[in-house]
Parts: sequence; structure tokens; C-alpha cells
Amino acid sequence: MTQTTLSTSTVKALKCKECGHEYDLGAKHVCEDVCFGPLEVVYDYDAIRQRVSRATIEAGPNSIWRYRHFLPVTGEDVIDVGTGMTPLVEAKRLARRLGLKKLFIKNDAVNMPTLSFKDRVVSVALTRARELGFSTVSCASTGNLANSTAAIAAHAGLDCCVFIPADLEAGKVLGTLIYNPTLMAVKGNYDQVNRLCSEVANTHGWGFVNINLRPYYSEGSKTLGYEVAEQLGWQLPDHIVAPLASGSLFTKIYKGFREFVDVGLVDDKAVRFSGAQAEGCSPIAKAFHEGRDFIAPEKPNTIAKSIAIGNPADGIYAVEIARKTGGNIEAVNDTEIIEGIKLLAETEGIFTETAGGTTVAVLKKLVEAGKINPDETTVVYITGNGLKTQEAVQGYIAEPFTIEPKLESFEHALERSRTLDRLEWQQVLI
Amino acid sequence: MTQTTLSTSTVKALKCKECGHEYDLGAKHVCEDVCFGPLEVVYDYDAIRQRVSRATIEAGPNSIWRYRHFLPVTGEDVIDVGTGMTPLVEAKRLARRLGLKKLFIKNDAVNMPTLSFKDRVVSVALTRARELGFSTVSCASTGNLANSTAAIAAHAGLDCCVFIPADLEAGKVLGTLIYNPTLMAVKGNYDQVNRLCSEVANTHGWGFVNINLRPYYSEGSKTLGYEVAEQLGWQLPDHIVAPLASGSLFTKIYKGFREFVDVGLVDDKAVRFSGAQAEGCSPIAKAFHEGRDFIAPEKPNTIAKSIAIGNPADGIYAVEIARKTGGNIEAVNDTEIIEGIKLLAETEGIFTETAGGTTVAVLKKLVEAGKINPDETTVVYITGNGLKTQEAVQGYIAEPFTIEPKLESFEHALERSRTLDRLEWQQVLI
Ligand SMILES: [Zn+2]
Ligand SMILES: [Zn+2]
Repeated sequence: MTQTTLSTSTVKALKCKECGHEYDLGAKHVCEDVCFGPLEVVYDYDAIRQRVSRATIEAGPNSIWRYRHFLPVTGEDVIDVGTGMTPLVEAKRLARRLGLKKLFIKNDAVNMPTLSFKDRVVSVALTRARELGFSTVSCASTGNLANSTAAIAAHAGLDCCVFIPADLEAGKVLGTLIYNPTLMAVKGNYDQVNRLCSEVANTHGWGFVNINLRPYYSEGSKTLGYEVAEQLGWQLPDHIVAPLASGSLFTKIYKGFREFVDVGLVDDKAVRFSGAQAEGCSPIAKAFHEGRDFIAPEKPNTIAKSIAIGNPADGIYAVEIARKTGGNIEAVNDTEIIEGIKLLAETEGIFTETAGGTTVAVLKKLVEAGKINPDETTVVYITGNGLKTQEAVQGYIAEPFTIEPKLESFEHALERSRTLDRLEWQQVLI
Repeated sequence: MTQTTLSTSTVKALKCKECGHEYDLGAKHVCEDVCFGPLEVVYDYDAIRQRVSRATIEAGPNSIWRYRHFLPVTGEDVIDVGTGMTPLVEAKRLARRLGLKKLFIKNDAVNMPTLSFKDRVVSVALTRARELGFSTVSCASTGNLANSTAAIAAHAGLDCCVFIPADLEAGKVLGTLIYNPTLMAVKGNYDQVNRLCSEVANTHGWGFVNINLRPYYSEGSKTLGYEVAEQLGWQLPDHIVAPLASGSLFTKIYKGFREFVDVGLVDDKAVRFSGAQAEGCSPIAKAFHEGRDFIAPEKPNTIAKSIAIGNPADGIYAVEIARKTGGNIEAVNDTEIIEGIKLLAETEGIFTETAGGTTVAVLKKLVEAGKINPDETTVVYITGNGLKTQEAVQGYIAEPFTIEPKLESFEHALERSRTLDRLEWQQVLI
């Protein structure tokens, strides 16, 4: 990275979130010189203000790269595989069912290329990896991140090595292997895999998207804030509900909204931030409810595996944001998560994975507890696709009616189905 | 449908493709009064020319409904679930591998909401169904169409009944049932299921998207033509390659391009149309190669089930278009289809279903036969997602390396993987 590229860029430095110490824009993620806090990218907002307007963004590509000046890359040559600009759908039927008036779904279940919000963070991380001169990129993951890293590395022609636990389900292995990365199935627990990855990063000089490239990687989630603001007609919502895994997504949506206010793209407004966790792994929800300013790590036990992080790195920052914006953090159990998946599918035609079921179930719980005002414009973030966690709902949905290819047989089944519907409604009314 | 709505609409009538007899815009699909030919929607292109410009389209919604005046709906209240405007990705690595210069992938594997191009046709059919007063919509399908109809009907709050074969795979049943339609699993062959559906349409007055609503339904595929033209910067490509099932998609992309030329949105240009079939069901390819002007029906036997239609309704129109544009129609076997899926995944990071594998394999075959000029701007249509046909590639992809959580074990596996890569390259070179 030369001085020339820096001077035309809007990216300034890495800065410790705890002590404020600054570092140059290399491949590092912790404040090694001072306090071991997490590093974050800082920008030259005056430069951004001069270069960016609603019109320049609208004239940009139909992907996250329309917000390039807000992303931690210094050159023009970005990896644009069409990621982002997923639909923001007004969810009228779900709103009516819950008693809300203005509800929107931001649907990353159809994100390009691998159907989860991870495509955003990986697109940014691999673009930065290439700028920093890495030719091999890597990650440790149990699902969505592995799919995304392997796919986008394939598109960009970067060598890719993915680390997964040795006991991963065959479907998830296939969804990564199809892109032909080197795939290492590690016989060890989460901590052992992470330790191995850090060693490999050091000895081989590889770019690990969620380790040494983490400050760049995590900035990609800001686009979930930018897109919602733009898709609402350049204004912020009143309330957002998003899943909490490490807590990073939540803090970056917040940062995205604040940046848009700071550079004058949207009017300032109070936005309430509410977070969703699964009861089987809810360290952030517990810290929120118990008024703590630290996270007590947990051993995960829930079907919502993609958000089950027992020791969430940005958990405490998520708690702070929920508190200061007047939001909430709630947890729901596995039965509620499955009901959340079904509720979203049957009211809006969107099939989400367990993380999305968690978010919808928490939305319902917050409405029922009076913690979402029916008049608030509320945006729910759906971060992944239900085809990836089919086993979670198998056994919990209705059966088809098996019939002969004859009108009479059909009529009989139709009558039975209508009787079942009536019974269901009677149960609802009782 | 009253005279008032008609007068503000750009849609004129249904017209027989064979004898030209006209019908009003009701729920019918064959020329009952004269020749039993298929009916097609005709438009008032003068009215469209007056209302539509590049600017009005660009200012429209980020979905197929930006082309509303070209679609067979008479009102303003459309079912917009964010369908369409999927990425058009420049496939530089696949192009280089094949020896092409300008290759693009139109990727409906990430279409909203159910990850196939069927979301386009169903969005249009259900909007029209609602305008015609239907409260129950239906379809007969073995996969993508069932998913899409159930999902979009759920979003729109229409009652939905889907007919599937009784022996359908559990995964595909789940991908439909999750939206909570009435699901009829019929113990019978394709013809028996279709006959039953026609009876139900008549006796119950239901709207079947691919039977009595077919003229409206099929028009939705034109948006795959419009979007490519717009995404190429308001110009047509030189060559397109698309899968052939019934042949409808192919003819509608052609119609879409012609309409854009006719109303002055793009300059006229010769576009070559090439079609892809699986050898195990290739009646259209055979008619093309044998110079016939009729289709000889076949019994399908291929892994590419979503495009395996033995007696394709629009097959002969597809042959005509390929002939008059100087295109080709080719077929590939199941091994080539799997190789096509892998080739697209490892060069571009896009995981497609067997239909997409067929299309990529035919693209490769056409290039190798000198039937695609390297300088042509070529667009390949990918119509569905690989997560839906995982069983097709299981057993045909590499295995992960299983390792201990130790650097030494990793190094050993890495060395083995590099040796394997070298061997593979040597085989390529020999
Ligand atoms: Zn520090
Ligand atoms: Zn006729």
C-alpha cells in the first residue's frame, strides 16, 4: 500500500476501539502495542462528504459497491459479484398478524452469491486482502462463512483454504466444496480450530477473513444500514430488529446509520436497536437484562447454530447500543424459532434459516410485550436462507394429502383440509 | 375487467399464435373457437411508446415491475415481492477458461423469493389472477414452480393448492410445505396429474398458473430479456444461451428483445439464440438437428429434471428462433451436466442446479465447436439454485482433508493437496 493510493482514498487508519491508539491499514485486528482491544477502520468523512451524494450513490452499481467510499478499500478494482441491494419488502401480512402498521423485511436470504449476509463482509475482506497482496485467503467456519469465502474467492481467482469442524453435516460440506477450495476438516473444538488458524495466518502469511482481516471484513455489514436507509427513500427507520451472534452486525448497522447522518445523506433521527438471540446461547441478552457491562461466556445448545457464539467479541458494544437507543435484547427457545420460520414463510413467502426464525420470533415477543410501538417503521433483518437448515423444520410442518388422480379423491382430501383449517381457527379462538 | 381499466392499460387482447383469432383478456390458454393453438397476450405498443422511456424504467421499482407496461396486467396493484433485477455478472474467469472475451451470467439462482426464474412468471400470473377475481391459485409441479407459487401466494394472501407427484423427494416437499399451501400428492403420472388439474380448474374455478393463466404467466419471462438489455447499458447482446424446457422461456426472451427494439429503448441488432437440453430429454435439439418442423415426444431420463419436458409446448417456436437467428440447440449428457455445475462454481462462485449445469455445459460445447465467436458479447441464463439439487453432485466432488488441530497435521495435508493439484494439471497438459 503506497502513499499515492492512500491520498486518493477515504480510508485513514485502524484505531483501537478501547484506547484509541492508531495503526496503519495492514492485516491486524488487535491493539498489540497497548491494550489488546479490537481495531476498527476510521475514515476521512470530509473527503467522503465531498465525493458522495444521493445521486452519485444511485448512479453506482446495483451492489454494496455503490457505497465504496464508506468501505475500507483504497483502490478502484473491487470484487463485485453482485452482492447486496437485496430486496426491502413491506411485510403487510406479517404486520397485520402482529398488529403493526409499517413493517419491512430486509431479505439477505437471497443475497448473491451464497444466500446470506456473509457475502457482504467477505466481498469487502477479499477485496482488501487482494489490495494487501494476499494470494491465499482463508476462514474458520461451520456454514455460511465457509460457503461465502469459497465462492467469492473462486470468482476472484484467489487461492482459498477453509477450515471446518470434522463433524459438519454433509450438506454444508457440499455447499463449500462445490467451489473447489482446499478444505480442512479439523478434529477439534472451536478453540482448537481458532488457535490452529492463527498459527497458519502467522506461519503462511494467509489472509483470514475473520481473524487478521477482521477490521475490514466487519465493515461490510454497514451496507445493511446504508441499503435500508436508501430503500426507505433516504430516511432512517424508527426501530430495527437484528440477530446477535458476535454482536458485530448490530454495531455495524448502527455505525452505517450514524455515518449517513454525519455526511448529510439522511436526516438525524432516533432509531431503536433491538437484538435477537436463541435461549440456548444468549450471553448478550443475559448481560442486557441483568444490567451487566460484561459478557459471561456460555456453551451453545440451540438449533440456531449460525448465531450461537458463546463468547461474542462485540457483545458488550451491542448491549450499549440497545441501552442507549431504548431498544431491547430478547431470547427465544427452539420451538419459538421454528414457529418464527413458519410464520415468516406463511405470511410473506420468505423461507429463512434458524437465525431468521430467531429474529422473527423475537419481533413477535417484543410486540406482545408492548416493546415495539405499532406506529414505528420497523425493519427486521433476515440474514440467511432456509434451504441451508432444512433439518431444523423437518418433522414440524404439515403432511401433504396423498390422493388418487381422480376428481373424487381430490374433493375428499380438500374437504378434509378445510375441516383441519376450521379446527385450527377454533383453537385460535378458544 | 371493465372498459375503464382497459382504456388505461397497455394490454389489448389474447391472440392465437397459429390462426390469429382474438379473445378477451380472460382465463383461457387455447384457441377454443378455431384451431386449439396457444394464446398469447398482445399489447398496444403505441401506448407503451408514449408512456415508457429509459428514465421512467430506471426510476421504477428494483424488480420486474419496472417493466409493468410490458406485462399483462391492467391495474396498478401488483404483487411485488422484489422478484427480478438479479445480478448480471461479468464472468471473466469462465470466459478465460473457455477462450471467450465478453461473457456474462444472468443469475436467477438468487431470484427473490424462491431462487429460480419461476418467481418472475408466478409474480405476473398471480397478479393477473387477482385482477381476474380468483381467490384460489394453483399449479402442478415437481419443484421450482411449486416453491414459487406457494411462496408468492402466501405473500399475497391468496389461497393456494399445489399438486405434486406422490413420489417427490422430501426436500422439495419441504420447500413448498413451509409456505403452508394445501398440498396434494397425486399417485399418478404426469398426464394423469395434468388431466386432474384441468378438471379442478373447470369445476372449482381456480386459477392454475401454468394452465388457464398460462398466457399471462409465460409473459413474465420477457423480463429476463428486458433486464439483460438494461444491465448491458441499454443494448442487446450478440448471443444468448438459455435452457430449453417447454421452450417458452427462450421465445419470451426473444419477444422481450424485439419489444425493446420496437418501442425504441434499444438499437436493433442481430442476436443469436442458442438453446440447451439434456441428452436424456432433448426433443427440441433433435428437431433442430434433423431439420424437422415438428417435435417427436420423448420419455425423460436425466438428472436435469426441472427442464425434462418430453412434449414441449413451445418447442417448435424455439427451433424457429434458433434457426432464424443463426443460433444452435445442443444437448449434453449427465456427466457433462455435473461438470458444468462444477465449472461454474469453481470459476465464478455460482452454485446452480442441474438446469444451469446443462446450460454451462452446452456453452462449453458450442465454444469448442466454434459456434460461439470469442468476440461476441454472450449472455448465459442461469435459472435456478444448486441447493435444490444437491443430490445430483453428491459423490462427484472432492473430499475434505481430515486433520488434527495441530500445525504439523495441517502442513502434511496441505502438501498432499498441492501434490494432487499438480497431478491434475499434469493430466490436463498430457
Ligand atoms: Zn488499544
Ligand atoms: Zn387459433
